[in-house]
Amino acid sequence: MVHTNHFMELALAEARGAKARGEVPIGAVLVLGNTVIAKAGNGTRELNDVTAHAEITVIRMACEALGQERLTGADLYVTLEPCTMCAAAISFARIRRLYYGAEDPKGGGVDNGVRFYRQPTCHHAPEVYSGMAEQDAADILRDFFQQKRMED
Amino acid sequence: MVHTNHFMELALAEARGAKARGEVPIGAVLVLGNTVIAKAGNGTRELNDVTAHAEITVIRMACEALGQERLTGADLYVTLEPCTMCAAAISFARIRRLYYGAEDPKGGGVDNGVRFYRQPTCHHAPEVYSGMAEQDAADILRDFFQQKRMED
Repeated sequence: MVHTNHFMELALAEARGAKARGEVPIGAVLVLGNTVIAKAGNGTRELNDVTAHAEITVIRMACEALGQERLTGADLYVTLEPCTMCAAAISFARIRRLYYGAEDPKGGGVDNGVRFYRQPTCHHAPEVYSGMAEQDAADILRDFFQQKRMED
Repeated sequence: MVHTNHFMELALAEARGAKARGEVPIGAVLVLGNTVIAKAGNGTRELNDVTAHAEITVIRMACEALGQERLTGADLYVTLEPCTMCAAAISFARIRRLYYGAEDPKGGGVDNGVRFYRQPTCHHAPEVYSGMAEQDAADILRDFFQQKRMED
């Protein structure tokens, strides 16, 4: 659990980095055998890329770094419940364990919405652990959107 | 309809190109105002990138070409029913119309599986037109997997 918390702290740091760049503050870390393979924050605005969610970015970075299409045995730490797109990408990448912070009732696709891992069209489901550093992850997002609303 | 068929023909050509590279043969074309902005075939093996489905690739290419995060008013032509990941990415990109060829009962996320556009966590749904060049799209895939099985 010491490692687990450490990796989620790194994901929170990526979320804070995303916030500093004006992005919706979500961060992700991809770990294989206790080694961090990739870490990233959400980058959709900076990159003009709607697919550049933190989870997609770390999966792509890790696949490139390892020179392989799948990440069997890898674990993903992300500050917010993955959306439908990311939930499916995590499945395709054969990720072993998914740890996420705050739930996302409006946009999540793991324990909310389409609950992709419980569907017959899902052909690999990771083990899912939620609620880790939930309050910190939620606070970063809430502060970001409160600030946005004040600016608008 | 002349244009519509023409664009699906281009998508089929991208699927055949993917097949020639040893990829699962699926192709996509992104169109804005009757102009092709991006076209691509599936590239997951070549690129070691599980997210490099044809649809994700053309969305990323088009966002980069246009310098914008969203593709409001754009239409997407794809030879196979998009999977759950791609269905969500198409929604995030605010694509106007989705035209697809063959249905995918095992992996589709539009008219099969999670039926993402009918869910409350989907915040933009494109108009969906299916069955265009369905037989050609399905034949390319069937031939590819038959050949694969003979090789194995």
